[in-house]
Amino acid sequence: MRQFIIIGHEVPTTPDFSLADTAGGAGRLDVLCRCVTGAFFLSHSIRSDVRCRVVLSDSYTIRFEGSELRGLHPDERSTAARIRATLEQRDHAIGQMETNPSPGVYLSRVGVETTLTNAAEEGTVIQLHEDGQPVGTSDLPSDPVFVLSDHRDFTETETKLLSEVATQRVRLGPRRLHADQAITVAHHCLDTNGYTQF
Amino acid sequence: MRQFIIIGHEVPTTPDFSLADTAGGAGRLDVLCRCVTGAFFLSHSIRSDVRCRVVLSDSYTIRFEGSELRGLHPDERSTAARIRATLEQRDHAIGQMETNPSPGVYLSRVGVETTLTNAAEEGTVIQLHEDGQPVGTSDLPSDPVFVLSDHRDFTETETKLLSEVATQRVRLGPRRLHADQAITVAHHCLDTNGYTQF
Repeated sequence: MRQFIIIGHEVPTTPDFSLADTAGGAGRLDVLCRCVTGAFFLSHSIRSDVRCRVVLSDSYTIRFEGSELRGLHPDERSTAARIRATLEQRDHAIGQMETNPSPGVYLSRVGVETTLTNAAEEGTVIQLHEDGQPVGTSDLPSDPVFVLSDHRDFTETETKLLSEVATQRVRLGPRRLHADQAITVAHHCLDTNGYTQF
Repeated sequence: MRQFIIIGHEVPTTPDFSLADTAGGAGRLDVLCRCVTGAFFLSHSIRSDVRCRVVLSDSYTIRFEGSELRGLHPDERSTAARIRATLEQRDHAIGQMETNPSPGVYLSRVGVETTLTNAAEEGTVIQLHEDGQPVGTSDLPSDPVFVLSDHRDFTETETKLLSEVATQRVRLGPRRLHADQAITVAHHCLDTNGYTQF
């Protein structure tokens, strides 16, 4: 299974935001929406072997399960609507006890540290870093957990946590990409078995 | 220079569409918006060496010039708004005579055939095709023009036109991707000089 964790630093934790302003008023929720699309969508199908967690302002985590998702669409607005509908159920999320408002979508009241720790128990955490091993030469594990940040850099605390749980540091290329683009590149590298099978 | 042409088959050619429904009522304009973002955006910067044309329902073509663009944002809604504002100037586009409603954005009243012919005079047209050469083994030219379709397959007419102007057929990988993901992968391949320099 491939996993992605995207840390959103300024996104809402309540459902009272406008779908017409996710790039502004909703703390760049648009970035997270594009990441969810990048994690799951193929042309006319969904990657069922993917788990994607988005961490909302270190307070809530939404877990998306590719094998269970239904009715997800690739446009930002409908993904933002799904996140908003999920947050409407926030009172049902009690600590690590998740609530499951729609198929394949789970909400828990945990932040970055718990989310990283949980994921590290499920797979091999990979830190994307410009000083890391070039992805073409590094053997990626079969259970990678890629951790990405939104439009902000990782905080010092996040960087420290990440260095504690990550077992590989990988560089995807010479240009700094948006998080959703990095997800697409990671998929591409894995799809082609490290650029060997097209 | 890298070029991308994205053919939108059902998108509006007038500005009377809602920004709240680009994925439905506006003929999947959301797909084209993601392609524009994929073509130009890096983390915190714009690729200035990119030209991107979107063909609207075989009637109009919008040309985006990376070296001139100002105020473009990566979210779908603002790109759709830019396209809508561009279409408000459609009466000023007379045949191949472009109008230039905003920095780096040009509108002409030409369809697929003229757009492909124009691009073929500027660069090396590459057809993305599942039977093509694997991108990792094919030498990409320095002036590639990648031609992509939206959520629809190329029509028979488009396929015929494309085979006439394309000098290379390339396969990006084993999975069929969304057009914007294919753009990201093409950039990645070129950024890494064919997966050799990370």
